[in-house]
Amino acid sequence: MDRTVVGIDVGGTNSPFGFVDENGNILAKGTIRTDFFAEFGDYLKALIIEIELKKLEHNIEIVGYGIGAPNGNYYHGSIENAPNLRWKGIINFTQQVTEKTGLPAFLTNDANAAAIGEKIFGNAKDMNDFIVITLGTGLGSGIFCGGKLLYGSTGFAGEIGHIVVDFDGRKCGCGRKGCLETYASATGIVRTVLEKLQDGNIKSGLRNYGKDKIDSKIIYDEAVKGDALALEAFEFTGEILGKALANAAAFSSPEAIFLFGGLANAGELIFEPAKRHMETNMLNNFKGTVKLLPSGLKENNAAVLGAAALCWNELKK
Amino acid sequence: MDRTVVGIDVGGTNSPFGFVDENGNILAKGTIRTDFFAEFGDYLKALIIEIELKKLEHNIEIVGYGIGAPNGNYYHGSIENAPNLRWKGIINFTQQVTEKTGLPAFLTNDANAAAIGEKIFGNAKDMNDFIVITLGTGLGSGIFCGGKLLYGSTGFAGEIGHIVVDFDGRKCGCGRKGCLETYASATGIVRTVLEKLQDGNIKSGLRNYGKDKIDSKIIYDEAVKGDALALEAFEFTGEILGKALANAAAFSSPEAIFLFGGLANAGELIFEPAKRHMETNMLNNFKGTVKLLPSGLKENNAAVLGAAALCWNELKK
Repeated sequence: MDRTVVGIDVGGTNSPFGFVDENGNILAKGTIRTDFFAEFGDYLKALIIEIELKKLEHNIEIVGYGIGAPNGNYYHGSIENAPNLRWKGIINFTQQVTEKTGLPAFLTNDANAAAIGEKIFGNAKDMNDFIVITLGTGLGSGIFCGGKLLYGSTGFAGEIGHIVVDFDGRKCGCGRKGCLETYASATGIVRTVLEKLQDGNIKSGLRNYGKDKIDSKIIYDEAVKGDALALEAFEFTGEILGKALANAAAFSSPEAIFLFGGLANAGELIFEPAKRHMETNMLNNFKGTVKLLPSGLKENNAAVLGAAALCWNELKK
Repeated sequence: MDRTVVGIDVGGTNSPFGFVDENGNILAKGTIRTDFFAEFGDYLKALIIEIELKKLEHNIEIVGYGIGAPNGNYYHGSIENAPNLRWKGIINFTQQVTEKTGLPAFLTNDANAAAIGEKIFGNAKDMNDFIVITLGTGLGSGIFCGGKLLYGSTGFAGEIGHIVVDFDGRKCGCGRKGCLETYASATGIVRTVLEKLQDGNIKSGLRNYGKDKIDSKIIYDEAVKGDALALEAFEFTGEILGKALANAAAFSSPEAIFLFGGLANAGELIFEPAKRHMETNMLNNFKGTVKLLPSGLKENNAAVLGAAALCWNELKK
């Protein structure tokens, strides 16, 4: 019987999961809705039933659980005050999984799980110092230092998306102003485009869309067609991101920084300006030492693989 | 015979050293001039003769060498392109010490040595995640993550002084603009005062000094007397520093940040505004989690103790 861990990606809407063997093969997959359940207890019951059914169907052995979740605290195995989930306060996720299944369970936040996935199954297998940046609705980050994921004293280290790049800058969902993620993220580039569209003199194919319809995919499509405003928006986003990455390099001196998620799929449109501005703004000691790379994980599986990698990694300790 | 390691603090002018036992007691001390020697080989010969003489005089056993040096690379045991030393290029310091003495030798930069000193002999004994900030001519930093000093892929991690806080800001000695140390350091606060003095309408006791005479000690003395401009300079310095420390906390989530060196001796004049602005600008998750503390090492011995702590720490591995 194949030995697997179950990787669970707790999202605001869905919770996909997968049975992942030690080599990163996903032997079976499933999903349940997250937002159907007002009570965490009901959610967990449904999730475990679903997992048990798949396990029987595919004749798979489970040796542990790995969970990636928003506001996940690795030290406590809990989700703590996640604004995008219905369960408020502190949810002792891993404790309840272990009580119900008798198996070890580990939890961390989504971006940390992506970083562990990169280390165990992706392009960072031989690296000890690297950063994974997830460019989605916000900007998440997982930081490896000396071969270990950085958790810090609280378990919440690695919030590069909430490093302030302009203290008088854009309002952030966190309540402060000018956080990196208000510029460098899928929603950040939309804000940039909307700001630029306010100047009525600039022609742009983006004017053909309603303001509330414009998303990062549409900006990408227009940029590929050569739309000047869309290209400027990528240049600006890459500049802010590149400068922030030069600052991050001065902190932890990574061998590589991986870009992952929605906006990273724009390829050279974001990689080229980000690389250029990172290198231009880099402290001399670090010039030429930091590679900016795409993730080695396929996006539709990455979160599940990352959660599973967390568990495999812990079981090997 | 007492077992000690020799801690050596390689400065631009002097190289004090001390024989330090496992409990952080300095059993004997000495010093040689750094800047007398155009060739590193001559310097090292003189240094080792001086150390051997002290060793015989005090009947002490040496089991290793720890060296704190500007632009020190821990991985290579070398000083690499230090602008303030006469020896250019790459100096294989530890290799040559071991060849000459037969004993193990370890080297890191001054701020990292201060952080290891804080961990082994100072106020961070029970901490795994903390940052030491040295506020001297520049701003140096040593970062502990998960119980280990952060070196990164190059060996140069922890350059918080060269994190850019304003890309259009003050010129920095590194060739870029707006690095934290151009504001938050002994020279940074002098620049702040000189800028403020350009407004001829503001009264200040600092006008009694020649512009090239004003140093951070004079600014401190005037601030203590209640001079408004000097107090404003401390407030501004604390604001820039506090905001940068809030950003650092989002990166590595330290339990404490220690301030050390010249400017830190101003006590509450710098601690109070730095704490206040750090807390005001902190991401919610981290509010109230980071202590801002004075170093537990006496300043006149700290560099030597730090270098010695590096060696004791390595010998225990």
